[in-house]
Amino acid sequence: MFSPLIDQLINSLRHLPGVGPKSAQRMALHLLERDREGAQNLSEVLAKAVEHVHRCQQCRTLTEQALCNICSNARRNRKELCIVETPADVIAIETSAVFSGYYFVLLGRLSPIDGIGPKEIGMDVLASRFAEGEIEEVIIATNPTIEGEATAHYISERAKAQGIKVSRIAHGIPIGGELEYVDGGTLAHAISRRQEI
Amino acid sequence: MFSPLIDQLINSLRHLPGVGPKSAQRMALHLLERDREGAQNLSEVLAKAVEHVHRCQQCRTLTEQALCNICSNARRNRKELCIVETPADVIAIETSAVFSGYYFVLLGRLSPIDGIGPKEIGMDVLASRFAEGEIEEVIIATNPTIEGEATAHYISERAKAQGIKVSRIAHGIPIGGELEYVDGGTLAHAISRRQEI
Repeated sequence: MFSPLIDQLINSLRHLPGVGPKSAQRMALHLLERDREGAQNLSEVLAKAVEHVHRCQQCRTLTEQALCNICSNARRNRKELCIVETPADVIAIETSAVFSGYYFVLLGRLSPIDGIGPKEIGMDVLASRFAEGEIEEVIIATNPTIEGEATAHYISERAKAQGIKVSRIAHGIPIGGELEYVDGGTLAHAISRRQEI
Repeated sequence: MFSPLIDQLINSLRHLPGVGPKSAQRMALHLLERDREGAQNLSEVLAKAVEHVHRCQQCRTLTEQALCNICSNARRNRKELCIVETPADVIAIETSAVFSGYYFVLLGRLSPIDGIGPKEIGMDVLASRFAEGEIEEVIIATNPTIEGEATAHYISERAKAQGIKVSRIAHGIPIGGELEYVDGGTLAHAISRRQEI
C-alpha cells in the first residue's frame, strides 16, 4: 500500500521478534517522519554488530572482543563454572550478584529433532575445559524444559566422568510467589523435591 | 552489562516506538543469535529508506518517488481532496475503499505550543492547490482532538474563502460498537450531532 521502499522497510522490521504488520508499519513511519537520525544510527550500529559480534573464545557468549568482559576478568572464581543456554541468562544471573565464577553459554540446548547435537552446543570446547582440571564445581542452569533437562543430564555425565562436582539450580515456588497462583507442574516438583529443615 | 557494541545496539533499538529495554535486549540477541541475515537486510533497507524517502511533491505523504502512487494515478477524482494528518491515515482510508479522490497529508497538526504553525503543515502548498480551482470538495479527516479540530477549522476557513465546499468526516458511535462501552465524550458528541431520519 505504501511506496515500494517503505513496504520493504515494513517487511524488514518484521524480522524483529514480537513485531507484527501493524507495529512494523508504526515503527517505519515513526522513524521516517520523526526520527531519521535514530534510523540512521540503528542502521549503522546493526551493520557494525553483524560484522563484529561473534562468540567469546572461552565461554561462547556474544561479544565483539576475543574474550568477553567476564572471561577477561582474572579476579573471578576459577573453580566454579555455570552453564547457561543464552547470553541473556548470563546477564540475568550477573544481575542477581550471587555467582562469582565463570560461565559457559551453550547458545541452545540438545535437540536431536532440530539437528542440535553436542557439537552445536560447543561440547568439545566445554569438555576441554573440564579436562583442564581447574574447575571444581559445575552449576547447570539450563531451562527446566525437556530439552534443557536432557542437556543438563548429558553435561553432568561428562563432568562427573572427569571427577567434577555437578549441581543443578533449584526449581520450585518463586520467592514472593503465592501457592494459589503457581502452576501444577511447578507445585508437584516443589513437593517431590521438598527438603528437610 | 553486555559488550559495548551489543549495548549500543540495544540502545539504538530503543529508538523504535513501543520498545523498552527488555524488548530491545530480546531483539538484539534474537538478531545476533538467530537472524543475522535479517539484521543485515534491515540495516541496508533502513539506510536506503533514510536516504531516498522524502515527501510527495503534491500531497506530502512519504514516498521515494517524486509523486506518490496515488498522486501519479490520473484516473482518480480530481474534484475531491481528503486532508489527513499522517501517511498511515491515507492507508486506512484507502483500505476502506470509499474514497476515490486525492489526498493531502499535513504530517502533523496545528499546535502553536510545539511551534507547529501553518507553514509546518504545508498550508502554502495546500492553498495553492485550493487556488487552482479544480477542487470542488475538501473532506477534512484530521483526528478529533483539540489540535485536530483547530486544524480542521483553520483549513475549512481557507477553503471556503476560495468558494470550495468543505466537509468533515462523521464522528460518533463506531459501527458494530455497543453504547454501553462507548466513552462519555463520544456519546455526548453522538447525541448532540444526532440526525433526523
